[in-house]
Amino acid sequence: MTLSKQEMPNQNYLFETEQALHDDIKKQMNRLFASSSQTTFLEEQIDEITNKFSEEFLSSLDANTHIDLDYLLSNFSESQIPVQPTNVESYLKYLGNNVVAHSIHTSSPQFIGHMTSALPCFVRPLAKLMTAMNQNAVKIETAKALSFCEREALAMLHRLIYNFSDNFYDQHIQHNLSTLGILVSGGTVANITALWCARNAALGPKDEFLGIEKEGLTAALDFYGYKGAAIIGSELMHFSFDKAADLMGIGTHRLIRVPADCNNRVNIQALRQAVAECRAQNLLIIAIVGVAGTTDSGGVDYLAEIADITQEAHVHFHVDAAWGGPLIFSQQHRHKLAGIERADSVTIDGHKQLYLPIGIGMVFFRDPYKAEAIEKQASYTMRKGSFDLGKRALEGSRPGMALFLHAGLNLIGLKGYEFLIDEGIRKTQYMADRICTMPEFELLAEPDTNLLLYRYVPEPLRELVAKKQLTETDNQLINEFNERLQKIQRQIGRTFISRTTKTTTRFGKEIPIIALRAVLANPLTTEEDIDTVLNDQIQIAAEI
Amino acid sequence: MTLSKQEMPNQNYLFETEQALHDDIKKQMNRLFASSSQTTFLEEQIDEITNKFSEEFLSSLDANTHIDLDYLLSNFSESQIPVQPTNVESYLKYLGNNVVAHSIHTSSPQFIGHMTSALPCFVRPLAKLMTAMNQNAVKIETAKALSFCEREALAMLHRLIYNFSDNFYDQHIQHNLSTLGILVSGGTVANITALWCARNAALGPKDEFLGIEKEGLTAALDFYGYKGAAIIGSELMHFSFDKAADLMGIGTHRLIRVPADCNNRVNIQALRQAVAECRAQNLLIIAIVGVAGTTDSGGVDYLAEIADITQEAHVHFHVDAAWGGPLIFSQQHRHKLAGIERADSVTIDGHKQLYLPIGIGMVFFRDPYKAEAIEKQASYTMRKGSFDLGKRALEGSRPGMALFLHAGLNLIGLKGYEFLIDEGIRKTQYMADRICTMPEFELLAEPDTNLLLYRYVPEPLRELVAKKQLTETDNQLINEFNERLQKIQRQIGRTFISRTTKTTTRFGKEIPIIALRAVLANPLTTEEDIDTVLNDQIQIAAEI
Repeated sequence: MTLSKQEMPNQNYLFETEQALHDDIKKQMNRLFASSSQTTFLEEQIDEITNKFSEEFLSSLDANTHIDLDYLLSNFSESQIPVQPTNVESYLKYLGNNVVAHSIHTSSPQFIGHMTSALPCFVRPLAKLMTAMNQNAVKIETAKALSFCEREALAMLHRLIYNFSDNFYDQHIQHNLSTLGILVSGGTVANITALWCARNAALGPKDEFLGIEKEGLTAALDFYGYKGAAIIGSELMHFSFDKAADLMGIGTHRLIRVPADCNNRVNIQALRQAVAECRAQNLLIIAIVGVAGTTDSGGVDYLAEIADITQEAHVHFHVDAAWGGPLIFSQQHRHKLAGIERADSVTIDGHKQLYLPIGIGMVFFRDPYKAEAIEKQASYTMRKGSFDLGKRALEGSRPGMALFLHAGLNLIGLKGYEFLIDEGIRKTQYMADRICTMPEFELLAEPDTNLLLYRYVPEPLRELVAKKQLTETDNQLINEFNERLQKIQRQIGRTFISRTTKTTTRFGKEIPIIALRAVLANPLTTEEDIDTVLNDQIQIAAEI
Repeated sequence: MTLSKQEMPNQNYLFETEQALHDDIKKQMNRLFASSSQTTFLEEQIDEITNKFSEEFLSSLDANTHIDLDYLLSNFSESQIPVQPTNVESYLKYLGNNVVAHSIHTSSPQFIGHMTSALPCFVRPLAKLMTAMNQNAVKIETAKALSFCEREALAMLHRLIYNFSDNFYDQHIQHNLSTLGILVSGGTVANITALWCARNAALGPKDEFLGIEKEGLTAALDFYGYKGAAIIGSELMHFSFDKAADLMGIGTHRLIRVPADCNNRVNIQALRQAVAECRAQNLLIIAIVGVAGTTDSGGVDYLAEIADITQEAHVHFHVDAAWGGPLIFSQQHRHKLAGIERADSVTIDGHKQLYLPIGIGMVFFRDPYKAEAIEKQASYTMRKGSFDLGKRALEGSRPGMALFLHAGLNLIGLKGYEFLIDEGIRKTQYMADRICTMPEFELLAEPDTNLLLYRYVPEPLRELVAKKQLTETDNQLINEFNERLQKIQRQIGRTFISRTTKTTTRFGKEIPIIALRAVLANPLTTEEDIDTVLNDQIQIAAEI
């Protein structure tokens, strides 16, 4: 099944002269690049083969093959680039057998463990178009219509969040000094960008001080009279905030993680207290972060209450809605996001619940001039007053991913996204209900949106669970069982559920609970698929 | 030619009941997502249309349409997401007329002004395959074979740079504690990542101090007894280093830009002096940056001499080879990179001279454990000891771009890349020679690699240029002329050259010279195309 590298023939026949070799390479490169019929034919041939790969891949119900990681990795141990171009057909065969075959079927209706899903069919042809167009969104000279198209798509989502007036959007949608949002590679860069803007705006130029951008963090804190800087949010904040605190020189110890309640929402009183403590310690609070859809369990913080706190404290309010942002499409569920419209910045991921390819993060700003705080210029491009999108961005060159975003918003529309969100939450409730009726499982929390935490309970312990009489040792046993169960299920590859560790206070101390974690976002997942996944776990558990 | 939004029909017929509307939306979403024959048919229809767009786009010789930016942007002023899904065919028509039509033909052989180019034909089908597979490279549970495939491709380039032993690669290529390289979205994130690792490694945990990661920059500098931190490099460093210095809390004033000589290479003596000054001021030097291919002019620093300095000073040596790195493929030109193998970290962009789609930056590390300094974990994923690539990375979720990189290295091969690099440099020399023979132009510097700076000289001033008798006012006139020339050329859209501003010392002071900037990397560009571009400029100049 696996084709080794040795079987992959290079054009390694000998050439009589250096010139003959050079001529052959020239011919081959011409065949790869030229806009000739020969190249078109080659591209069509490749397209035919890769289309077959895609079709087979997309129609698979299994989550994965059961190939062992250690075996698999041994197939990728070549550290030498082939001297001559590899034959295209052989390479594609190799790719099919070694890479495509052993990739994860993230679109499978029974792969319900991570924030990846089946995608709408239009993204695949658009991916080819985007690659053909090869626009570089960093500047207008390499992305003309696309720069404006990107701004339009971002404005649409901005409006969904903030709902300012027609007049506001007329003024800012295509104004080169305004930044309604920034399209980045993912939620992590979006979160970092938001905090970077917040930090630089809080420690900007004043009197003789030139601002943190030029003079650095230590000088800035010194000038403004702070002993340090902090970021405050729920203990369930995504680990991108650790990256931000580290990268920005704040230190992860000053990323203050406030306890969450049993519904996975930040404890508001504890949050207030954290603010007061930072003040008492004379720390600048760069931002308070609200989470709209924790990675762990989908919990949404009480955004309106956090908004009150940030308003009173005059602190930047950032909402990480990378996962949960699209709840806003749902008339039934958008109330869970109430308060998001008061955020100074909001992160949403396109590749999560907007059902777009991976590589689309976004950060939105209430104040269209907030991103000025990170503006940079360069003489060969990125000129002041230009439409270059790269002026106010962490990244430089970046692809025309706006094409997907614009298409998604138009081809799916408000009602389409509403349907997708509502369905995911409905199916999650179905799964939660099923779990409650099955003696094998324990639901660990009522789902807030479309993530579900539960665990398998081995037969001898079920009564104790029901009576809430588990000892710490029992709990440890259940943990070990669930970790094994999840690993075996992943290894077998028929279905997939992820796992996480929740910390809970029981027996008067913090104990870890290993949870099975379902993410119900795939539109292809039916109630039958959910039953199949649960039954698969029961079957595996019976054999442990 | 342009289809307005009003002409783009939504499925806006009225539904008698809410339920009927809901059922219709359900049907439409099912059609977009389901793996049914109906969806396959729709996808094929879309594919056919977008393939036509691509073909037409790729076969265009013109750099661009001559549509005016102000007119174009007025077509992108919609801030409302359509309520119901837009009809697919209408949307594609809209896309073709409004976005594709007015995008930049970066593959045109006469678009020789930026670091974008025609791409090999296999990247387009692969883009579709990558999107179909929808792997998330952040973790092994969503990117199984691809995680190992990515490591293999990175190891291949690592070996090309560092050329360590078979034994070294056997040990590190697939070892989960080793990081030979990190695949990121672009050169900017690559540079930031390199400096982040360097900073954290220099200010790591020691005795009771927990390291900069946890305690922050101010505490770290304090603990280690520094008055501040600095990054040193050429004045021609890419503006991503400004972003890094700002973001990391160093401050851009401590990004020390050392003057370059007339060949656009950092002045080594001035660099030594900058190091001594930092020492005298008790500043930690986080890294010294060597540039291998400046964005402005393609100049390559004296890397071996910088390596000597960094070695003596025990400072991290980073080489930004985002553009120039692939010179290493060329037997004829790789000597220009001599010393790169002594770098602690190296940035190379896949979407520049590896001819891959935009969105592939890479940073390589001499020490496979260097990236430990930025390692993060999260309980729901990114577990210690796992193969999760996201553990040591600035970004989180990211697409399977490794597919392109792996394919490029195999399908183009060492000799293929060598050919492409050599041809670019050969054509640049041709263009330089042509410019020298044409009285209309002045070559501003002998090209180092495949970037070329020159300018148009209006007839009355040519003799003064030849005699080197230009006054400052004359120079100002030439500047204005070239800026206008470049703008008009861009506006007309037949051909394209970019522009930049060089600062030169003349008349005993710093004066700006506006230069036309050619980038000769497109394999489709012929000598005839180069002549066409130059003649286009002459023709435009005659009409100014």
